[in-house]
Amino acid sequence: MHFIEGAGTVDQLPVDALVGPCRVVEFDGPRHISAAWLEQADIPEGTERILFKTRNSERWREPVKPFDRDFVALDRTAARWCVDRGMKLVGIDYLSIEPQGPEKEGYPTHKMLLGAKIVIVEGLDLKDVRPGEYDLACGAIKFEGGDGAPARVFLIER
Amino acid sequence: MHFIEGAGTVDQLPVDALVGPCRVVEFDGPRHISAAWLEQADIPEGTERILFKTRNSERWREPVKPFDRDFVALDRTAARWCVDRGMKLVGIDYLSIEPQGPEKEGYPTHKMLLGAKIVIVEGLDLKDVRPGEYDLACGAIKFEGGDGAPARVFLIER
Repeated sequence: MHFIEGAGTVDQLPVDALVGPCRVVEFDGPRHISAAWLEQADIPEGTERILFKTRNSERWREPVKPFDRDFVALDRTAARWCVDRGMKLVGIDYLSIEPQGPEKEGYPTHKMLLGAKIVIVEGLDLKDVRPGEYDLACGAIKFEGGDGAPARVFLIER
Repeated sequence: MHFIEGAGTVDQLPVDALVGPCRVVEFDGPRHISAAWLEQADIPEGTERILFKTRNSERWREPVKPFDRDFVALDRTAARWCVDRGMKLVGIDYLSIEPQGPEKEGYPTHKMLLGAKIVIVEGLDLKDVRPGEYDLACGAIKFEGGDGAPARVFLIER
């Protein structure tokens, strides 16, 4: 319901997406994550939950700074790649997963991911997290009828 | 800070308490859980997180019903037992862990548990949870300076 009228609300998010194995992937580019980059990033087949650690995470050293549109996001090709790979949850380390600027028109990243019922997690602070495999527990509050909710997110080392 | 002035706030809860092995124990008595009952409940030494499933959980079939003071809680002897056993987290399946009535005077259960830095989780719906061993992830929202917070709580089967 965050971007698609009449669609699911945050209290209905499947627990199956919120809890389970998760890969943290580091992206060191200056601008958006694309399918071409993902293709060569050695992400194992069968990965269902993925969090992207980017230069955005450095922002959390000053969490009170105003919203800054110059952040790394997922472009529409990356969103399509996540859908094609059967992802259940995709997270990013700034306040939106959508590229800002002209490519934002129509919100293709949000609509592609949410249209495939992929849970989007925004605002993650990954600056002290090493890339690798974890078990994720994404504790999204069940706001009845909400289109989003705060979440406490744990990555558990194996 | 929920009951002890100047004490810790909810954003400082130790992750070490919020995440880890957890035992769900069923209590079938009509009134409060006591140390005497806990002594004979076969709770393994080394248990650090415990959730009590009681007749309270049946209340969640009608979650909009008004607050009902006739619920099962932990009496002061049970709170002391939890402290002596070195618990890190204690949860109950109704809106308070404190017995209502004359024994509430001074809030001994809250003060004993919180004084020992034990995390209290209230309002759990355990009606569909089987007693036993799980891995817990208690996703309490980090409200800066808060004396409490909503939490999404997962019990993960092994």
